[in-house]
Amino acid sequence: MREVAVLGIGQTKVEEHWDKSLRILAGEAVLAALQDAGIPGVEGIFVGNMMSGSANHQQHLGALIADWVGLRYTEAVRIEAACSSWASALLAGLMAIGSGEVESVVVVGVEKMTDSPSNEITAQLVTAADADLEGGLGLSFVALNALIMQRYLHEYHWSHADFAAFSINAHANAVHNPFARFRKPIDLQAYTSAAMICDPINLLDATPIADGAAAIVISRNPGVSAHRPVRVIGSAAATDTISIQNRKDPIWLSAAEKSTQIAYRQSGIQPKDIGVFEYHDAFSIMAALSLEAAGFCPRGQGPRLANEGKLKYDGEIPVATLGGLKARGHPVGATGLYQLCEVTQQLRGQAGPTQISRPYYGMAQNIGGSGSNIITHILEAE
Amino acid sequence: MREVAVLGIGQTKVEEHWDKSLRILAGEAVLAALQDAGIPGVEGIFVGNMMSGSANHQQHLGALIADWVGLRYTEAVRIEAACSSWASALLAGLMAIGSGEVESVVVVGVEKMTDSPSNEITAQLVTAADADLEGGLGLSFVALNALIMQRYLHEYHWSHADFAAFSINAHANAVHNPFARFRKPIDLQAYTSAAMICDPINLLDATPIADGAAAIVISRNPGVSAHRPVRVIGSAAATDTISIQNRKDPIWLSAAEKSTQIAYRQSGIQPKDIGVFEYHDAFSIMAALSLEAAGFCPRGQGPRLANEGKLKYDGEIPVATLGGLKARGHPVGATGLYQLCEVTQQLRGQAGPTQISRPYYGMAQNIGGSGSNIITHILEAE
Repeated sequence: MREVAVLGIGQTKVEEHWDKSLRILAGEAVLAALQDAGIPGVEGIFVGNMMSGSANHQQHLGALIADWVGLRYTEAVRIEAACSSWASALLAGLMAIGSGEVESVVVVGVEKMTDSPSNEITAQLVTAADADLEGGLGLSFVALNALIMQRYLHEYHWSHADFAAFSINAHANAVHNPFARFRKPIDLQAYTSAAMICDPINLLDATPIADGAAAIVISRNPGVSAHRPVRVIGSAAATDTISIQNRKDPIWLSAAEKSTQIAYRQSGIQPKDIGVFEYHDAFSIMAALSLEAAGFCPRGQGPRLANEGKLKYDGEIPVATLGGLKARGHPVGATGLYQLCEVTQQLRGQAGPTQISRPYYGMAQNIGGSGSNIITHILEAE
Repeated sequence: MREVAVLGIGQTKVEEHWDKSLRILAGEAVLAALQDAGIPGVEGIFVGNMMSGSANHQQHLGALIADWVGLRYTEAVRIEAACSSWASALLAGLMAIGSGEVESVVVVGVEKMTDSPSNEITAQLVTAADADLEGGLGLSFVALNALIMQRYLHEYHWSHADFAAFSINAHANAVHNPFARFRKPIDLQAYTSAAMICDPINLLDATPIADGAAAIVISRNPGVSAHRPVRVIGSAAATDTISIQNRKDPIWLSAAEKSTQIAYRQSGIQPKDIGVFEYHDAFSIMAALSLEAAGFCPRGQGPRLANEGKLKYDGEIPVATLGGLKARGHPVGATGLYQLCEVTQQLRGQAGPTQISRPYYGMAQNIGGSGSNIITHILEAE
């Protein structure tokens, strides 16, 4: 991989942004990232977004946002890969730089989900799954994850309460993140008594719909930055069957295993070298499966790591260090860019009270659908 | 630009495909392109599509189609840039190869527009324009083009009938293309008496909604092909303001001018070297504006080329040689890949009765929105 530096990051708070349109939200993140990068402009804009066509009656976000932030006549495209849209956009941006066609690009993820009634958004979210084999049968996206979690509890003999530690950790870390949606801690009692959504997934296993935008500026040129330099040293995507029913093993994320293995190989590092892992905890079951597929523990042992306290920001494998999808929030097409901004904050030493102690290698992993498209990025600090 | 070869092409007929789902349609094109390329597989799939989320209740087409054609564990993304989605997907594919990360990829464009009632599709199409400044005011996409055409007729003193030659030429060429939707010729009388849609655009100025898929396989490795080798030597994108009202000159395609200039420079050729120009004649006014912005005639003189017969397949500047958007059809996210397949057919000498006489350089140009994102590719035959 050609060496690519992260020059700037920009985030908006994750919440219900009733007062801001899609372009304003995205523009705020882009301009913040450009300012943080300290460069006047870029040669391309890559937009990650899942559902603006249906949720906001606006497609063509590449041209829309390029126009809004004054980047006319550049290359501008939108990339959609469901919840992994942002990461695919980053990958495309990296490849554009790698090809030598451009020097610097901005990658922005934006999603505005609260404009639509929640039943409509639920119907739109399941378009990330197989419309013929899953969505068309009436399965919601939560229901698909509930089926996976049911099977996992059955196979590995965990109880639902064993998953509490994932959500408790995420909320504890979000308290200190000004961009997070839920800045309040939760405890075991709150977790076990939360309202059931789709058995066994309850309200505190899942992340809610939200609005938000995040952006990064990446470049072939390391630039002159006031920040500790951060580079992208691994970037890999892999797909699996789109429907769960076609998978040989529905409680194993093959695409995550494949994409992390490639990213480790590109980076020349191993799981034990990772100082922070921003995983895709849209549901607590996905937190467990991600840890296993990325090689941090044996199959079926994800909840053990959480219950032993190893996932805390000062533990062995810090995850969701600024709140994760669970508590920072999950505006789907933007989520992965929040993850990458957060990994960059950690590697730069700008993460505040939940700063990790080994800020050399960070990994962000984004899951599209129920595990059908998984993209892994590894960053290194000098 | 790193040298990239076109190894294979695949197309389905453009029509109302009531009997085929999105994945089946896309799969047919992908498998045809792989077979034409004579290679067993590729390392990535890039999907161009505009509106599957709203029109087909299915997003996440990268994973969906990769799964369907048996390309699991590859990179798979969908790119949306309205009517220029496909071309953006090709550009991303070229960059992926250029970056050295992959050797061969398949790029597929697919759109299935006839599943929805036509009033819904009309509403979905205008999401390519500015939702706040255009679509939200009740302007349809045809209406936006009608405003541009009105202004053009006024400024340059052409009559509506002067645009007939564009549509007549497109229909004449489509007669011989088995993948074209309208394989019947039209004459001046039919054109001038066609039903008005939005003054001055009538039924024979515009392309209708349609279903279709087309694919190409591109590679760093020229391979061992039975076909005359074809290479991509130019690929450039440029954006303009998304809304027409913000443009300094609404009857000049600045983004087309910019992207063709870059593509000519990359290729080291000039307009006079182009043997075939597959332009984006979604509306006849766009045919005229494209010819002008790409440097084939002075400003305001596009209709003259058509009326002098220079645009015929055996003329000076062959366009729409297999029917163009007007008569081959315009399944929006797939259109540009049809264009590229057709340019490849011409350069290989496989275009049938409308084969051009100078098969060395071909250009395809795709317009997103009303000119807000324009992508130009130049191909060369050995």
